[in-house]
Amino acid sequence: MSARKPSAGGGVASKKAAKRAPAKPAAKVPDRITEFSEFRKRMNERILEHDNQVVRRFFALDTQTYRGGALNQKTKELLGLVASLVLRCDDCISYHLAQCREAGVDRDEFFEAFSVGLVVGGSIVIPHLRRAVDFLDRLETMPA
Amino acid sequence: MSARKPSAGGGVASKKAAKRAPAKPAAKVPDRITEFSEFRKRMNERILEHDNQVVRRFFALDTQTYRGGALNQKTKELLGLVASLVLRCDDCISYHLAQCREAGVDRDEFFEAFSVGLVVGGSIVIPHLRRAVDFLDRLETMPA
Amino acid sequence: MSARKPSAGGGVASKKAAKRAPAKPAAKVPDRITEFSEFRKRMNERILEHDNQVVRRFFALDTQTYRGGALNQKTKELLGLVASLVLRCDDCISYHLAQCREAGVDRDEFFEAFSVGLVVGGSIVIPHLRRAVDFLDRLETMPA
Amino acid sequence: MSARKPSAGGGVASKKAAKRAPAKPAAKVPDRITEFSEFRKRMNERILEHDNQVVRRFFALDTQTYRGGALNQKTKELLGLVASLVLRCDDCISYHLAQCREAGVDRDEFFEAFSVGLVVGGSIVIPHLRRAVDFLDRLETMPA
Amino acid sequence: MSARKPSAGGGVASKKAAKRAPAKPAAKVPDRITEFSEFRKRMNERILEHDNQVVRRFFALDTQTYRGGALNQKTKELLGLVASLVLRCDDCISYHLAQCREAGVDRDEFFEAFSVGLVVGGSIVIPHLRRAVDFLDRLETMPA
Amino acid sequence: MSARKPSAGGGVASKKAAKRAPAKPAAKVPDRITEFSEFRKRMNERILEHDNQVVRRFFALDTQTYRGGALNQKTKELLGLVASLVLRCDDCISYHLAQCREAGVDRDEFFEAFSVGLVVGGSIVIPHLRRAVDFLDRLETMPA
Repeated sequence: MSARKPSAGGGVASKKAAKRAPAKPAAKVPDRITEFSEFRKRMNERILEHDNQVVRRFFALDTQTYRGGALNQKTKELLGLVASLVLRCDDCISYHLAQCREAGVDRDEFFEAFSVGLVVGGSIVIPHLRRAVDFLDRLETMPA
Repeated sequence: MSARKPSAGGGVASKKAAKRAPAKPAAKVPDRITEFSEFRKRMNERILEHDNQVVRRFFALDTQTYRGGALNQKTKELLGLVASLVLRCDDCISYHLAQCREAGVDRDEFFEAFSVGLVVGGSIVIPHLRRAVDFLDRLETMPA
Repeated sequence: MSARKPSAGGGVASKKAAKRAPAKPAAKVPDRITEFSEFRKRMNERILEHDNQVVRRFFALDTQTYRGGALNQKTKELLGLVASLVLRCDDCISYHLAQCREAGVDRDEFFEAFSVGLVVGGSIVIPHLRRAVDFLDRLETMPA
Repeated sequence: MSARKPSAGGGVASKKAAKRAPAKPAAKVPDRITEFSEFRKRMNERILEHDNQVVRRFFALDTQTYRGGALNQKTKELLGLVASLVLRCDDCISYHLAQCREAGVDRDEFFEAFSVGLVVGGSIVIPHLRRAVDFLDRLETMPA
Repeated sequence: MSARKPSAGGGVASKKAAKRAPAKPAAKVPDRITEFSEFRKRMNERILEHDNQVVRRFFALDTQTYRGGALNQKTKELLGLVASLVLRCDDCISYHLAQCREAGVDRDEFFEAFSVGLVVGGSIVIPHLRRAVDFLDRLETMPA
Repeated sequence: MSARKPSAGGGVASKKAAKRAPAKPAAKVPDRITEFSEFRKRMNERILEHDNQVVRRFFALDTQTYRGGALNQKTKELLGLVASLVLRCDDCISYHLAQCREAGVDRDEFFEAFSVGLVVGGSIVIPHLRRAVDFLDRLETMPA
């Protein structure tokens, strides 16, 4: 999986690698990702500790949805990403970006998924696309 | 109304009270609520000082909508809350959470309203639900 | 339950009863309601006969959501109705209208719920409100 | 206003006139427009005869919104049209198409407004654009 | 491609084949599909014959979006399908169902894509899911 | 263009000018606008440096959409503004506010456009309206 990390470009300074080099976001950047996942984790626990069966079952179902089956996990995470893009939910987009990356989605694939979200959802998607690419850049600066 | 404040749990350390104890948000927390209401108040005034009759009438109508009638105010605020959840507007959710709490909605009722919003609106609602529960926790740490 | 049927107004020809008299939709009207529920029932079966656990669990969860708990069933159906109004889904609106009526919601209560949906969701809700009132009128012409 | 009617092209068989000639929708076409406005009119009356002040005031406000002021009526109807397009409400689109046409919007202007709606709202708007152009064609076949 | 047609089950009367047998929609069914594609085709032509470059370019871009690249066409059509489901556009859903089927998506894959759309988008998606499955059943009754 | 700057009120201390005086947002205010445009600019470049033709063409089309034609640029920017309001995208609203101001839209015109967005989109638009007016106030405090 380290093959997807920018550092994995190794000694090869190809034009493609150069094009994809993250745009050096500010130094404290990984903190924003950490902050996002910590709030997410803490509040999920807070929500699930309340004894409401419908809410708990919904959360369980949400996890089950992206498990590989007739469609593999990578495809399902891409479906979740594009659905989040056209519904314009930054947190959902960030979450699926990280999941997609874990599942092996590369930059070209990300941009083709973005292009579907952009054309289906329109220019109103653009601000979310900006934050998506920023988040992806930040993800890539994190240590493996 | 103080019965809804966590501090009102008194000497009773019931399991239910424990479950509902706010998750100790950071110390400066009430400030966020204060900041939210101050911006809200300041900008409402700023909007209404402009001489546009349609905008002014809309604001008046918005206030009138939640007054008790055939349905009581508590039910109407819950309707406003769930509508805001499925339309995914954090500020509207925060506002109706505070109003619902004023009207006597308790945690179990909140979570049942959340469950309707979650099932109707889907997982795209979850990030807003996280912030809603966080806001509710913060509301409960404020002095009566 | 017959108390909610317009015919139940009995000998009292009050102004209120007159105001609420259904607007005599075309004779074949109940057929449209029947058609709607038959398609709904047939396709639900068709969907559930496919062996997909996530879809089946979602349908089960959807049913569970509206059972009375901390909030009673009538309130929950009203929440479902207003959520459907602001998300502008005619079939969902029709379904919750019928469920609300079963749960005892009367015309004044319906219109107050409509007013919340209208003010939160805006004039874009109006065409759905027209069809909602038409559906309600049709429901009331059906034999008990 | 008759200048906007296709028949008004007179003896001038310009290329532009030819391009704009309605695509001859089926003979019973005007009936669909009539049906739409009759249902609209009948249900508006039905809604307003119920004694709910918020709903009535909202309807009055909706009418007031499009009156000419700092922006003229034509511009406001175009704003209503594009808002309806991106929110994808066929009835609202049809209504504003008719109002825009009354206010003197011509085909080129309509298509530029459509292009804004299409680019902002994305390809999901296309089915509504198809029905919008069909409705416009039908409007133009009606006697002045 | 005939492998995706139900009749292709051949002599194998497996439980799976039985489960997938279309639910015999009414005889005149294929007409609805034909009607849909004819309106679609006729209005696309009507739209494109107007000399508006932004609209024309958007239509060209829409076509280009689903061509196989880093992601293959099947994956992209599935992305288009789920985006259409969560945005709740019946015509878009029908279109992508037909395209997906052309690209080799089978029933199990369709239902997994549906499950993502349902969980992300919520119960408000269900009426569209019913019509999607109905459309799919109808597609499968058409001659190859 | 300086005519649209508040300072252009000159020596005339009319009631109207007073009413429109910006509400003195905090001193560091212009920074927020600068920050917004810098992030926007940086990420647009970052997106466009990736070799995805659909995304690039979409961005080019988006720019082309607002050029004056049958409708002038001011009207088109107002259409973009109201579309952004009802779709509730703060960044899009901010962008079109700045563009509209460049094109000569004054406060009364802005508020009439807001009133259309508010009535069509409902009270869910209000938080975005607050931020829109705040952004407009900040724009007006910037040096010409």
